[in-house]
Amino acid sequence: MEIEEIREQLLELKKKKDVEGIKSLFEVTPSIDIAEAIEELESVRDTLYFFRIGDVEYRAEVFAELSVDKQQELIKSFTDKEILSILEESYADDIVDSLDEYPANMVARILNIAPKDLRKDINTLLNYKENTAGSVMTTEYVSINSDLTTKQAIELIRAKGKSAETIYTIFVRDNKRNMVGTLNLDDLIFAKDDEPIIEIMNKDFVFCHVDDDQEEVANDFKRYDLNAMAVFSKDEKLVGVITIDDIVDVIVNEANEDIANLNKVSNIETPYLETPIRKLLLKCVPWIIVLMILQVFSTLILSTFQNAIAQLAILSVFTPLIMDAGGNSGGQTTTIIVRSLALEEFDQKDVGKVVWKEFRVAACIGGIVAAFSFCWLMFEMAVGIVNVSDTAISTWGDKALISLLVASTLFVTMIMSRLIGCLLPFLAKALKKDPAVMCGPITTTLVDIISLLTYFLLWTYVFCPMLGL
Amino acid sequence: MEIEEIREQLLELKKKKDVEGIKSLFEVTPSIDIAEAIEELESVRDTLYFFRIGDVEYRAEVFAELSVDKQQELIKSFTDKEILSILEESYADDIVDSLDEYPANMVARILNIAPKDLRKDINTLLNYKENTAGSVMTTEYVSINSDLTTKQAIELIRAKGKSAETIYTIFVRDNKRNMVGTLNLDDLIFAKDDEPIIEIMNKDFVFCHVDDDQEEVANDFKRYDLNAMAVFSKDEKLVGVITIDDIVDVIVNEANEDIANLNKVSNIETPYLETPIRKLLLKCVPWIIVLMILQVFSTLILSTFQNAIAQLAILSVFTPLIMDAGGNSGGQTTTIIVRSLALEEFDQKDVGKVVWKEFRVAACIGGIVAAFSFCWLMFEMAVGIVNVSDTAISTWGDKALISLLVASTLFVTMIMSRLIGCLLPFLAKALKKDPAVMCGPITTTLVDIISLLTYFLLWTYVFCPMLGL
Repeated sequence: MEIEEIREQLLELKKKKDVEGIKSLFEVTPSIDIAEAIEELESVRDTLYFFRIGDVEYRAEVFAELSVDKQQELIKSFTDKEILSILEESYADDIVDSLDEYPANMVARILNIAPKDLRKDINTLLNYKENTAGSVMTTEYVSINSDLTTKQAIELIRAKGKSAETIYTIFVRDNKRNMVGTLNLDDLIFAKDDEPIIEIMNKDFVFCHVDDDQEEVANDFKRYDLNAMAVFSKDEKLVGVITIDDIVDVIVNEANEDIANLNKVSNIETPYLETPIRKLLLKCVPWIIVLMILQVFSTLILSTFQNAIAQLAILSVFTPLIMDAGGNSGGQTTTIIVRSLALEEFDQKDVGKVVWKEFRVAACIGGIVAAFSFCWLMFEMAVGIVNVSDTAISTWGDKALISLLVASTLFVTMIMSRLIGCLLPFLAKALKKDPAVMCGPITTTLVDIISLLTYFLLWTYVFCPMLGL
Repeated sequence: MEIEEIREQLLELKKKKDVEGIKSLFEVTPSIDIAEAIEELESVRDTLYFFRIGDVEYRAEVFAELSVDKQQELIKSFTDKEILSILEESYADDIVDSLDEYPANMVARILNIAPKDLRKDINTLLNYKENTAGSVMTTEYVSINSDLTTKQAIELIRAKGKSAETIYTIFVRDNKRNMVGTLNLDDLIFAKDDEPIIEIMNKDFVFCHVDDDQEEVANDFKRYDLNAMAVFSKDEKLVGVITIDDIVDVIVNEANEDIANLNKVSNIETPYLETPIRKLLLKCVPWIIVLMILQVFSTLILSTFQNAIAQLAILSVFTPLIMDAGGNSGGQTTTIIVRSLALEEFDQKDVGKVVWKEFRVAACIGGIVAAFSFCWLMFEMAVGIVNVSDTAISTWGDKALISLLVASTLFVTMIMSRLIGCLLPFLAKALKKDPAVMCGPITTTLVDIISLLTYFLLWTYVFCPMLGL
């Protein structure tokens, strides 16, 4: 059902005062759809009306899906008791995600209302740096002792697991409280009642540390097909758990960031239609201006050689072709290398292997592109797309020389652009910068410089004398 | 532990003939790590040796993680009984993924060995088109009747669930075999023994159809935080289930595809270092050549106006600046819109809203960039980065006019590039083409044409007369 249909149906039911009808609609509709339907209602009163009809668990679910702005509006109308009930039904990591965006006085009010244990958890989570494992983990997990039997374990999970974010993965500790394994709920279901946990748990579990980069954690989830992963403190104690639903968001966000940066725009985290124009300008304009400033080098080179251009204007016809081909080729390599690094297909120690492979690829591409461009330019001059009739280029020999100038420049450009495009991401990584942000502009700038210099120097010192100009 | 360490340790244990030692190493090491360690062993014999030490379940896990080439090598050495045992322990969707890459005679052998039921499942799955829900689903799920109690349900799951890919989500059907809900295993664990399933199941479940695009399915997993989703046939019967681990792969692949295409290279599905050079060339070279051919329009325009350039070479100094700024700005918009469409932040009926928003953003960017470029060019001429001393441009008034020419061109270019960059993805989507593939090259080409024409027409009919040239 479309969100708008749900909204209309809700309003109609409200008009009829059919509370039971609203409840049954809630029952068959996912909470995020209800949240979106009541988010856009004109009066907060209406939103509150529908919000309060759901049971307490449903309310917490709907609340988590509302926009931060709407959440704040609602909180202002909430009693302390209502806030408490939502806090109790919510996962600590979701609460922290919201609190990060609230004004300080609202955060203070909520922390005051929260029970002591939860307050402690929230405060811990609030302290982890963005994009670390700590910032996506939750403290609500189930851990059991390794000397239990399956029957005892199930009883313990039934008693303690309700508030956990997942019980599909249970963490097993020894008597010294060190983690020794993970237990999948399905293995527990299939096991006999009196089987010792230690027999059915996985000893080959994967874990991470609170300070680990969330992208690395996501790669491990993907590699090992995990549902949940243990998070350890620096002193190797279990302090939290990351679940797959949060990792899906991490994967999408990290990909979006790479996509944006590789295409010379900053990542917009909010949906496009909800993003204010001012924010869109901030994400786009700085890149355009910086790239324009970085073009100072090509401008300088072109300006220096303007006499050559004045002598033979046809030279300037081919500069965009050369610069674009170099930019495209460098961009291809950067894209491939940045993504491979992000997905941990190789790491920094493989730089030698990668450069050697790129060199061979680049040499082939250089050869192919040079050969193609030579033929293509001869064709363009033959059919008159490039008009050389008014210039000093008259014979077919002259035309071949000009095509050869462009082809040789492209050969050098292809090789250099790919080498630069593959080395820069490694350099960025070594400097602990985001490769996707740095490499695009710097590759383009360097490739422009190299290709223009090659072009005009080859012209001045090789081809111009050969043409007798 | 690093893969190389694992490999060395395995070989050492083999030398000592310490089979128990190998078994304990298997126990604490994830199967994908073991697979990678034995993948690269020099002799297939060694690989087989280690492979046969694991129990039958572990073998199937390791086998699934090996490269398709290595799988084929092993199959050649396998007895029919060994193949059968791996088939029995594997999920149908994993088997199909591998079979897709095997030669026909090997597929025939495997289908012959497979038990009848499995053969039927495999044949069904092999028939779904790539990138549809059917191609990522598995037929191994648990479904139960809605009139059971929780205790009966758990018994049924224990009896039947072992071969299912997931038991965390169980599908509930009524007596007419229509699906009426989903049941989370955790709700089952927390429920009382005699509670009717119908009371604790989710009636607000989300499903898809076999022909749905996998990207849309992935968006629903993300939106609704699902672990598993029911797949329906065209006549609305439950035929399979998609699990979150397969969706994580879909999300990464779809993002990689967008990243590659937006950056004018085809997506390389294998890890970079394993991809043969020939394949890398095929992914890169066609784009460069096509883009070079598409530049025929700008070449034509530049060639047509070469007299203007011959008259005032300084004009050609600014063409790359204008073309790049237009390309960057169009690329920004395309990137934003392509991703928003992929993540279903809006759909085709929102085209009006998007264009209107983009128009306002574009007008602002045009204004800012024009103003900045005017000042920047004046600065470049003032400090001599652009050398105008040998040209007809002598007074500050002349310099201002040239800067104004570039600034006005940029104003038009910014607006047009963003409008083109946002309209094309919608057009591509309407034509059922991948927006990321089509839009990059076409945007660049159109923007180049518009910006160069604007530049030279403004020069010829407005600024040239004003300068008295």
